[in-house]
Amino acid sequence: MEDDDASATGTPSRPDNVGTYLIHRLQSLGVSHVFGVPGDYVLGFFKQLNDSELNLVTTCDELNAGYAADAYARIRGIGAVCVTYSVGGLKVVNATAQAYAEKSPLVVIAGAPGIKERIGNPLLHHKVRTFDTQRKVFAEVTIASTVLDDPSTACGEIDRVLSEALRVSRPVYIELPRDMTFAPVKLPDPAPVMREAASDQNALQSAVDEAVMTINSAEQPVVIAGVELHRFGLQDKLLAFIDKVRIPVAATILAKSVVGEYHPLYIGIYEGAMGFESVRNYVESSDCLIVLGAFMTDVNLGQYTAHIDQEKAIYVTSEQCSIRHLHYAHVRLHDFLDGLISAPLTPRTPHDLPRPRSMEPFLTKRGRKITVKRLFERLNWALEDNTVVIADVGDALFGGLDLITHRRTEFLSPGYYLSLGFAVPASIGAQLANPNLRPLVLVGDGAFQMTGIEVSTVARLGLNPIIVVLNNYGYATERPLEDGPFNDLQVWQYSLIPEIVGAGKGTVATTEDELNHALDAAQAYTKGFTIIEVQLDPHDSSPALQRLTEGLAKKIR
Amino acid sequence: MEDDDASATGTPSRPDNVGTYLIHRLQSLGVSHVFGVPGDYVLGFFKQLNDSELNLVTTCDELNAGYAADAYARIRGIGAVCVTYSVGGLKVVNATAQAYAEKSPLVVIAGAPGIKERIGNPLLHHKVRTFDTQRKVFAEVTIASTVLDDPSTACGEIDRVLSEALRVSRPVYIELPRDMTFAPVKLPDPAPVMREAASDQNALQSAVDEAVMTINSAEQPVVIAGVELHRFGLQDKLLAFIDKVRIPVAATILAKSVVGEYHPLYIGIYEGAMGFESVRNYVESSDCLIVLGAFMTDVNLGQYTAHIDQEKAIYVTSEQCSIRHLHYAHVRLHDFLDGLISAPLTPRTPHDLPRPRSMEPFLTKRGRKITVKRLFERLNWALEDNTVVIADVGDALFGGLDLITHRRTEFLSPGYYLSLGFAVPASIGAQLANPNLRPLVLVGDGAFQMTGIEVSTVARLGLNPIIVVLNNYGYATERPLEDGPFNDLQVWQYSLIPEIVGAGKGTVATTEDELNHALDAAQAYTKGFTIIEVQLDPHDSSPALQRLTEGLAKKIR
Repeated sequence: MEDDDASATGTPSRPDNVGTYLIHRLQSLGVSHVFGVPGDYVLGFFKQLNDSELNLVTTCDELNAGYAADAYARIRGIGAVCVTYSVGGLKVVNATAQAYAEKSPLVVIAGAPGIKERIGNPLLHHKVRTFDTQRKVFAEVTIASTVLDDPSTACGEIDRVLSEALRVSRPVYIELPRDMTFAPVKLPDPAPVMREAASDQNALQSAVDEAVMTINSAEQPVVIAGVELHRFGLQDKLLAFIDKVRIPVAATILAKSVVGEYHPLYIGIYEGAMGFESVRNYVESSDCLIVLGAFMTDVNLGQYTAHIDQEKAIYVTSEQCSIRHLHYAHVRLHDFLDGLISAPLTPRTPHDLPRPRSMEPFLTKRGRKITVKRLFERLNWALEDNTVVIADVGDALFGGLDLITHRRTEFLSPGYYLSLGFAVPASIGAQLANPNLRPLVLVGDGAFQMTGIEVSTVARLGLNPIIVVLNNYGYATERPLEDGPFNDLQVWQYSLIPEIVGAGKGTVATTEDELNHALDAAQAYTKGFTIIEVQLDPHDSSPALQRLTEGLAKKIR
Repeated sequence: MEDDDASATGTPSRPDNVGTYLIHRLQSLGVSHVFGVPGDYVLGFFKQLNDSELNLVTTCDELNAGYAADAYARIRGIGAVCVTYSVGGLKVVNATAQAYAEKSPLVVIAGAPGIKERIGNPLLHHKVRTFDTQRKVFAEVTIASTVLDDPSTACGEIDRVLSEALRVSRPVYIELPRDMTFAPVKLPDPAPVMREAASDQNALQSAVDEAVMTINSAEQPVVIAGVELHRFGLQDKLLAFIDKVRIPVAATILAKSVVGEYHPLYIGIYEGAMGFESVRNYVESSDCLIVLGAFMTDVNLGQYTAHIDQEKAIYVTSEQCSIRHLHYAHVRLHDFLDGLISAPLTPRTPHDLPRPRSMEPFLTKRGRKITVKRLFERLNWALEDNTVVIADVGDALFGGLDLITHRRTEFLSPGYYLSLGFAVPASIGAQLANPNLRPLVLVGDGAFQMTGIEVSTVARLGLNPIIVVLNNYGYATERPLEDGPFNDLQVWQYSLIPEIVGAGKGTVATTEDELNHALDAAQAYTKGFTIIEVQLDPHDSSPALQRLTEGLAKKIR
């Protein structure tokens, strides 16, 4: 679109109004794409975004824009979604809640009625109860929020909430009344410092000393690596630490791929009764558990079948630092890791480590029906160095845990919040965040029916994920808990969806040889996306899911 | 599914636990269908619903279940949506907000972690910040909310919030921790009284007297009928009043079809500059405006181009009663109407009334491209006595205002909240609420791309709406305000969607003769739904929309 009013829009390098300052700050923090759906209360800002160096990515639905931005944030370190008032904003509440629960620094920008329009409290369209309703809702699911109702404080407010998003890696909310979008601002001087967070040096030294003593005197220390190592960009520090001391490392479910799964010290995912017995035994027989950046959620802990003894644990996250029963205040995770790296830790020679199972050749028999177990065995062979696995909730996730990703941060999933429908929209955010990645999307039929039509945007952008729909004709994770017709889904012809959206390819696989052929063809076709519908038995499931549902069934009533 | 544990489920007629009591109360208030998506925290209640006399209708996505239940509530007088904790609940926030804004008595039932599970504040899956996060969010968009955390108070709490939903016709929130679902209850005795709301008799008499004097002394009184007349079932009272005194009546946008549009005293929709000049002149030259149950929203008032002079107005809603500058407390709308009906009002003989334009024969020319204006002229001929028009946001709504519906309450639209994507899911709720109705769904391509795939559920239930997709290749209502690539949409083959979901028919119309044929065929095909994609010029729009966007364009910056 031609811009005939350049003076009003500014440029990212010289922001001169509220909207362009916000764009400038996002860009300086690493944002290159903003996801959203337009609406009249936010159209002025959409114009600014369109005129800026940022790429504006519109999706079919706001919730999906939220998921895409969340995935983008998990890879880029920050992501942004921009929507209109209420009818857009209230549709991204769930994505924002997910980002809160799983610590993703998602910036929600919502247009709103102008401050002057609000005088007299009129019934403007999209208003719910009061003009403040939306902000109050987001206050419950974000770590910081602001309404940019004053140009003289707007820059400071933008910097404050963005700093918070980065500091704790959680979502924030910025409301932009439309009459503030083009309001002139004076730039803050000096430019604000982001990500600042200093440790208490005495507490830090004390914690590191105690940790070193504990680790050095342990027989079999093991690291449990959590998702915060990824969120805060601490993976190199983790590797420096474990490589130096040669301590084996397990990951939580949510943190799968935080360490490359072929790393010689990587022993697998620790998930209590859900995981492999060898990993569980190794971890639970350890006399020194070094838990770094991990949330102790029910899912991560295999429905609390996992057993972490506090008296054997060094437990450091962005929110706490404890060693056995001792708590240290104001000790930052990154400083603690730096402390361990430079500390006099005795190198070890671990042996008899559990190792990810080696991949056996996938020998197919023509016409043999695919099982869930065999599907994932075959998918393992489809992983390439540039594959990012994006697993939706259900057996897509649980089966996917057995895949062995090649590098690190190549496995994305809402492994704690467990909201169905993340994966397809997330693939958009993931591939835009890192164009070198090619997503392998694993999604059940229930999740696909929620958001899978967002392949429309995949088509529009020319992205090329491989989307494997695990069609087991219903909510298979619920059938073992309580079955009924409410777990059944309408049968779709998933492979025809490319014809609806005008790009991509679709195919169906019911046998192992069809699966082989479909995956080979999808990998060879790089110009667009492929949907592979894999038809499964409704009562088949992965071993991990079988163990999980047994744990959950006891808790329904 | 066979029920091998009948004692645990109860029946609607003899509820003996929290879940079955809730079902019993819903049923006694007129609910026959509950919409939702299952999840592990709510599976026990889904089992109860499935075993009850209520029909459980699962949809692809929770938001759509919310829309369907909202539409159901608008027709039945109450509707219910049932979802799981957070990942389900937070997806229906937008539908709930819409119900709040537009006064629809929607009951949101959300499963949740058991009260016993919450001890020690563990990180259970789906949890956001605290176990109370979801309830706090819903407190902002409902009129009453409760967490059923105690069986001894659960029945009273259920009755309290359901009463509130009916009393003010707004949504309520009921959270059902899963360990409470089957907890035994003692039934309240006597059964609670719903819908109670008494007027102050002195204030009522005083208001009616003043109104009678004002009306009798007026030259040209006119009624503006609002949506509350529909919500509170007061349409018969309205007719009794206007038929007795023979006062002309206009409707607001949100209330379109509250009076049958062929009624001899009906003059059309009053919407300021957006509407027909004749209606506007008649209303604004009146010396006595009787505004009943109407919200004075920006859209209803044609972006405040409408002009209602308080000094000429009798203004009575569920929330206020004023006559000129006099305010009367505790005067109920239904009592006020009863008062008018029995009052000594002088019958009139109104003349020169604006009348809905008569329908001219639709003469097509083979190959002539369809315009928006001609589309709606043709759609008028497709309306039958059993048609309910469900208009999504955009030109589907604004163009749809010119349709002349046959009976009353046959036009549903989110005419104030204006959330895109309501219509297709709403058609499910509408047709289940009244199986005698056949929906004519008017939906733009932008709205259809959000929720149109929910025709999957239409297919599953064997419903037969006629779905007209107004394809103008983007967000056409925004183009005149601020255009850019962000208003463009991916081109879909809408007519192929029946092949995805396994039922229904699809067709494309670009010319008037194709439209003729498509509508005739759709009306003749009653076994399932039809999608008619109508291809329009991206810059074509209805006259009403042209006037609205002129009003809105001034407010963007």
